[in-house]
Amino acid sequence: MKSYLEMSYEELLEEKEGLEKELEKIKELGLDLNLTRGKPSPAQLDLSMDMYDLIDSDSLLMAEDGTDCRNYGGLDGIGEAKRLMAGFMDCDPEQVIVHGNASLNIMYDMVARSMTHGVLGSTPWCMLDQVKFLCPVPGYDRHFSITEFFGIEMINIPMNADGPDMELVEKLVREDEAVKGIWCVPKYSNPQGITYSDEVVRRFAALEPAAEDFRIYWDNAYAVHDLYEDDRDHLLPIMKECERTGREDMIYQFCSTSKVTFSGAGFSAMAASKANREDIYKQMAVQTIGHDKIKQWVHARYLKDMDGVRAHMARHAAIVRPKFEAVEDLLSKEIIPRGIGAFRKPKGGYFICFEALDGCARAIVDKAKEAGVVLTAAGAPFPYGRDPRDSIIRIAPTFPDTAQMKQAAEVFAYCVRLASAEHLCDFMARK
Amino acid sequence: MKSYLEMSYEELLEEKEGLEKELEKIKELGLDLNLTRGKPSPAQLDLSMDMYDLIDSDSLLMAEDGTDCRNYGGLDGIGEAKRLMAGFMDCDPEQVIVHGNASLNIMYDMVARSMTHGVLGSTPWCMLDQVKFLCPVPGYDRHFSITEFFGIEMINIPMNADGPDMELVEKLVREDEAVKGIWCVPKYSNPQGITYSDEVVRRFAALEPAAEDFRIYWDNAYAVHDLYEDDRDHLLPIMKECERTGREDMIYQFCSTSKVTFSGAGFSAMAASKANREDIYKQMAVQTIGHDKIKQWVHARYLKDMDGVRAHMARHAAIVRPKFEAVEDLLSKEIIPRGIGAFRKPKGGYFICFEALDGCARAIVDKAKEAGVVLTAAGAPFPYGRDPRDSIIRIAPTFPDTAQMKQAAEVFAYCVRLASAEHLCDFMARK
Repeated sequence: MKSYLEMSYEELLEEKEGLEKELEKIKELGLDLNLTRGKPSPAQLDLSMDMYDLIDSDSLLMAEDGTDCRNYGGLDGIGEAKRLMAGFMDCDPEQVIVHGNASLNIMYDMVARSMTHGVLGSTPWCMLDQVKFLCPVPGYDRHFSITEFFGIEMINIPMNADGPDMELVEKLVREDEAVKGIWCVPKYSNPQGITYSDEVVRRFAALEPAAEDFRIYWDNAYAVHDLYEDDRDHLLPIMKECERTGREDMIYQFCSTSKVTFSGAGFSAMAASKANREDIYKQMAVQTIGHDKIKQWVHARYLKDMDGVRAHMARHAAIVRPKFEAVEDLLSKEIIPRGIGAFRKPKGGYFICFEALDGCARAIVDKAKEAGVVLTAAGAPFPYGRDPRDSIIRIAPTFPDTAQMKQAAEVFAYCVRLASAEHLCDFMARK
Repeated sequence: MKSYLEMSYEELLEEKEGLEKELEKIKELGLDLNLTRGKPSPAQLDLSMDMYDLIDSDSLLMAEDGTDCRNYGGLDGIGEAKRLMAGFMDCDPEQVIVHGNASLNIMYDMVARSMTHGVLGSTPWCMLDQVKFLCPVPGYDRHFSITEFFGIEMINIPMNADGPDMELVEKLVREDEAVKGIWCVPKYSNPQGITYSDEVVRRFAALEPAAEDFRIYWDNAYAVHDLYEDDRDHLLPIMKECERTGREDMIYQFCSTSKVTFSGAGFSAMAASKANREDIYKQMAVQTIGHDKIKQWVHARYLKDMDGVRAHMARHAAIVRPKFEAVEDLLSKEIIPRGIGAFRKPKGGYFICFEALDGCARAIVDKAKEAGVVLTAAGAPFPYGRDPRDSIIRIAPTFPDTAQMKQAAEVFAYCVRLASAEHLCDFMARK
């Protein structure tokens, strides 16, 4: 197979024409496939249905400490739910605050509170001329939406194979008091599937911010979402590292059961230092009387502990893995040898990140749409939706079934080839 | 029985000494009773346990429109949950936005968003020199905590027998652009149990605020919480009245299932005009992917419709009514004839509001505490915890069992008598 980069103009033109015909044929199939959704498939959700056999009218919905889970109270969650979430976040159960159905909502609330009330007594951010967040890119669009919503300036930080460019992070955090936070998905990052190396985690824990109210938003969304039981990434526990450097106030950790049991119908949690927790409780006590403890009760009994969680996640992996591999195989066969893109085979998480030739991402997404395959908008994994190189496409393989996934990947490969051929032809024609 | 107000100084002194001895005896019993908790008793929570027989591993957790309730999505809730909540709020289902486990959290979020982003394009409140809320008093302490948390100035509005003093409300709303909201519990108000009259509701709907971003926070927490099936209060549907006056953007309605099924483990909702909803969705879409739909699914199937809700609430009433009556009987027998207090017999809700002689509330609460009966702090139903007359005490009869409630009410009556006798003696001695 010849690389497009070695083809002559005429060869590329011919390739392009062949592909156009192929895509015309595909359009006639009237496909309706969607690769945008980073959500579990129905088969994955079926895995947790027996959770509801643990609760009926005879259940004594009493927490370990005797709390009636059916009534008000318990601002920070029941003990067994904290213990479970401490396992996800590698921290002490007492550092955990259990929240509602979505960790996104916790993160939103943390930023919102910082805007109106500051952080541990600092000036409320809404009273400052400038507030900035560092955004490792590509990253999670919903993180960037939160900071954009509050008018916080976002600064792109390139991702390396072992995590964000720490030299740049260290410099910006140290030199600019307006830098108040950084968004991190430290394990199986969205969308690249990168797990931060031990060194990167240690450098995070050793940051010396100019702003006393600088916080690391450590969204460990894929803490237990391994694809391969015998080859999983290990993330150094950030809280323990921060305790070592005496900077435990610098870290907010987040996680949830959304992609473990039911998406949006599980529960979420954060972990924070004692000083941060006390600050957070002051606001939480005004906002709520406490989160849903029945859901905590049933989840704690169903998942039990980290062994239980890992056994459960292995069943997810068995469903999800073939879909990832279908995409990876096709890209490896059809795209990589042609020199028109790259990707990193993730060991977990929910996405495959495809890196097209610069300037081709939008065109690929448009062509796929015409052919009946909806992809996440090009640019979405970047602040303000702007991919400076127009190169990154996030593929979410979990939701469609494996057959659909294979078909969608085939269409995707044609679109990558056609957009790349067009791009290279244009480039050559201009020279 | 002689009124204390007709007693001589010597008679009062004698009464006082007798009561002191009684209370000493009570202290020796080492009671530990709590009348502070406006929450359902375990017997009430037992009523809804069969809800969990409606869901097990075989359940098809599909909403009416085919939505998989186990997965992400559905920002505003599933149709059947909206329809149910529209029944609580007397509005169209399409006006309903379903939220998480607590209506308090919605109200907090509404104020928080107004602070940082304004209301329908108005200046964010955090950028204004002054923001004021009107607070009918006595009222719900957690409402006042929200406005206090955001530094919003609170203005007391006296409550009449048919609702807030509307003349004052109309004047302040019309004349002061800084007045941005009013807290209302329009049915079986907390703590007085007053239901706003039709005229009051109509005057609310006809308010002419100076501030375009003025909103009525209509917290219909006790919409279906009647004590007497054959003698329930009826609240005029405010949304329909506002539509009549063309001021439907002025109203936010709130409700929840917390005191219907499980407190803090049910779901909540708000209702708002189309323009308000669109404004709210902009923020909600950043804050969350959607609230827990499994909980909505099971609640909708369990409660079915307003007939189902009313039948269920009648079972609550059967448990709660004797507790209310125990307090009312004792107050009627021991306090009213002595001229040292007043109360209004509520037809629903969660509280009895006792009005002591001016200057006696704190002393009564302190004495009760010494005697082993914890009451809500005097002043709690007022902004900043300040009851200008030191007269109002909120009694929450639902949580203790009826025997405990009777005993607590007896102790309470002794404390009211003693504090009143002391107060009157002091007053006479000073003259």
